Amino acid sequence: MMRTICVVLLSLAAFQAGDDSKPASSNVRNAAYPRVHDDGRVTFRFTAPGATKVQLQPGGADNGLGKGPIDMTAQDAGKGIWTITLPAAVPGFHYYWFLVDDMAVNDPGSETYFGWARQTSGIEIPEKGADFYEPRDVPHGEVRVRWYRSKTTGEWRRAYVYTPPGYDRDLKTRYPVLYLQHGAGENETSWTKQGRANLILDNLIAAKRAQPMLVVMETGYATKLGATPVQGPTGQPSIPNAFEQVLIDDLIPTIDAEYRTQADRASRAMAGLSMGGSQTMQITSAHLDTFAWIGAFSAPLRNFDIKTSLGGALADATAYNKKVKLLWIGAGTGETSIHEAATKLHAALDGAGVKHTFYESSGTAHEWQTWRRSLHDFVPRLFK
Amino acid sequence: MMRTICVVLLSLAAFQAGDDSKPASSNVRNAAYPRVHDDGRVTFRFTAPGATKVQLQPGGADNGLGKGPIDMTAQDAGKGIWTITLPAAVPGFHYYWFLVDDMAVNDPGSETYFGWARQTSGIEIPEKGADFYEPRDVPHGEVRVRWYRSKTTGEWRRAYVYTPPGYDRDLKTRYPVLYLQHGAGENETSWTKQGRANLILDNLIAAKRAQPMLVVMETGYATKLGATPVQGPTGQPSIPNAFEQVLIDDLIPTIDAEYRTQADRASRAMAGLSMGGSQTMQITSAHLDTFAWIGAFSAPLRNFDIKTSLGGALADATAYNKKVKLLWIGAGTGETSIHEAATKLHAALDGAGVKHTFYESSGTAHEWQTWRRSLHDFVPRLFK
Repeated sequence: MMRTICVVLLSLAAFQAGDDSKPASSNVRNAAYPRVHDDGRVTFRFTAPGATKVQLQPGGADNGLGKGPIDMTAQDAGKGIWTITLPAAVPGFHYYWFLVDDMAVNDPGSETYFGWARQTSGIEIPEKGADFYEPRDVPHGEVRVRWYRSKTTGEWRRAYVYTPPGYDRDLKTRYPVLYLQHGAGENETSWTKQGRANLILDNLIAAKRAQPMLVVMETGYATKLGATPVQGPTGQPSIPNAFEQVLIDDLIPTIDAEYRTQADRASRAMAGLSMGGSQTMQITSAHLDTFAWIGAFSAPLRNFDIKTSLGGALADATAYNKKVKLLWIGAGTGETSIHEAATKLHAALDGAGVKHTFYESSGTAHEWQTWRRSLHDFVPRLFK
Repeated sequence: MMRTICVVLLSLAAFQAGDDSKPASSNVRNAAYPRVHDDGRVTFRFTAPGATKVQLQPGGADNGLGKGPIDMTAQDAGKGIWTITLPAAVPGFHYYWFLVDDMAVNDPGSETYFGWARQTSGIEIPEKGADFYEPRDVPHGEVRVRWYRSKTTGEWRRAYVYTPPGYDRDLKTRYPVLYLQHGAGENETSWTKQGRANLILDNLIAAKRAQPMLVVMETGYATKLGATPVQGPTGQPSIPNAFEQVLIDDLIPTIDAEYRTQADRASRAMAGLSMGGSQTMQITSAHLDTFAWIGAFSAPLRNFDIKTSLGGALADATAYNKKVKLLWIGAGTGETSIHEAATKLHAALDGAGVKHTFYESSGTAHEWQTWRRSLHDFVPRLFK
């Protein structure tokens, strides 16, 4: 009996006295590090015997963990254990990795998340009072992996399809569809894994704040059959690519054939974040007969000219307003240049009389917390 | 025009003259390495500036890439590029990582796969003439991520559920169910990601070699609400754990309530690999009223005693034969000790008159190619 109690006390003593930290919810099971403290501070720990320098590298210049690289301290030089405790981080999901003598290395304690064109570590910092993206005790929809054949690329491709609670019971109900795109260097898994789109929808639908709908998530990269992939700056195919054709010719017909959809423009939305927001603006402008609801989350729409951009699709405000039931533009206040571009676009749209909704996520940067909040604001406005 | 052609030639020149190698299908998109040659040789490449030693570490003692660690060669000391070309590898999926001055590091060119209790690199070596786990031009089922509330653990848990092609069309059809478990250090994603269980089922069903069925895949680790997790040797909770109770009390009732199942023992199978095979033998023996079809793939059933093991469930061969419609035992010939245990068990079952099927996967070890082949042999025997 005494021995058991001693073991527990000893293992607690490994942390600071009064330490309230817990393993991050983004860790693989049983991994003790990284740990999040109640006040939002984060402790990282990494074992690198023989290293002369270990640093924490938050992914991105405006990452909520701070500006990197951040030097870590050797706790026990003999064992090569390096640690750092950061000041309170911005809530939400942050990509990160370690630099061991300048070599990028993932944290074995973290789940991996596809971003930066590779599988990357990430950490979840809870936001006090915000549970709109947590699994609550409400009915849950499914996320379905749907293989489909693309005539455009000649490949079997995979879409992730969210079906709302009750989809398999209410067999006469047909549903509207949101096509939802990730950002550069991410893929079809990102909106549910990093973004928790399914949980956001579950919670909104349970609260009767959103229409039950399907959400279709696909990779926004595609190369036409026989073509040579165009390399982008991150080593990914750059846009313009064949995704527009995949979406219009292959994916939408598959979804409308395989699921109980409302297959008309008034019941079809498209939104995306960053690169996916640019793709959304580009594709919906060229296909206003296909989409009536449009969301650009943190899209880099710099130097946007109402008269000429997107082939002049917004030049005739009256015609655009008649066709488009929602144009939603948003950004985080912490992503300076994109927020500035969005603010300018907002003013230009107002000036030109293009109806739209403008959203600002307070204190968040070019990161997933901005896009979770964006989705949470966007979805309740759809299909009404 | 000429310039374009020159670029292509230059990029080919980066490989050996006459090199027929291609990026592994397990790479993240656009990653050039690792590369698989037509004869099964594999070239790995890793950039580690400042490293004094870089090695390739195949995951596991009998990994089809060879016995590790395997020294890599510095190609260009200034840039820190290290490479190795291995002799022809055993076909199938192999876990691996790099050791950089003894520190384990994933390959940024590889997708990650949950194994070894963390996200790990892996490589797919094609098997000539074997396409039973490839995406063929046949109807594809879905893999659905199903959240459900576990009373046992007090958590929201996730199951992966394969539904066969036509599940959403043939609305009066009810389906039998296979519960399919991963091995130690893996999770609910492993059977579809590493194992390609969904593609194996798609192909068998299309060939009319298997009954359309549901396949339910869950994490075999669980801790009762309020209990302290028991640590296993890999840092994972060890068995015995609360998975039996989760399966019987929470998961099976959820699946039978949410899907069109045939909810009787004659329509319910359980199988698993390695640790999951042991769990299968243990759980089915205690619940023969729940399961009638049983598969143990590469289960470490050493020192198995027909009279006493599993609470003597197999001691009365006549009773067991009457209840159990299929007992399937298998192993790869390359996994010496487990193959030996399976062979002994096969003889003991024969001796005791316990009806069973014995399967050997030729030339494969304690790896996923053994388990893909096991599933491919097991599934056509079910529910007949």
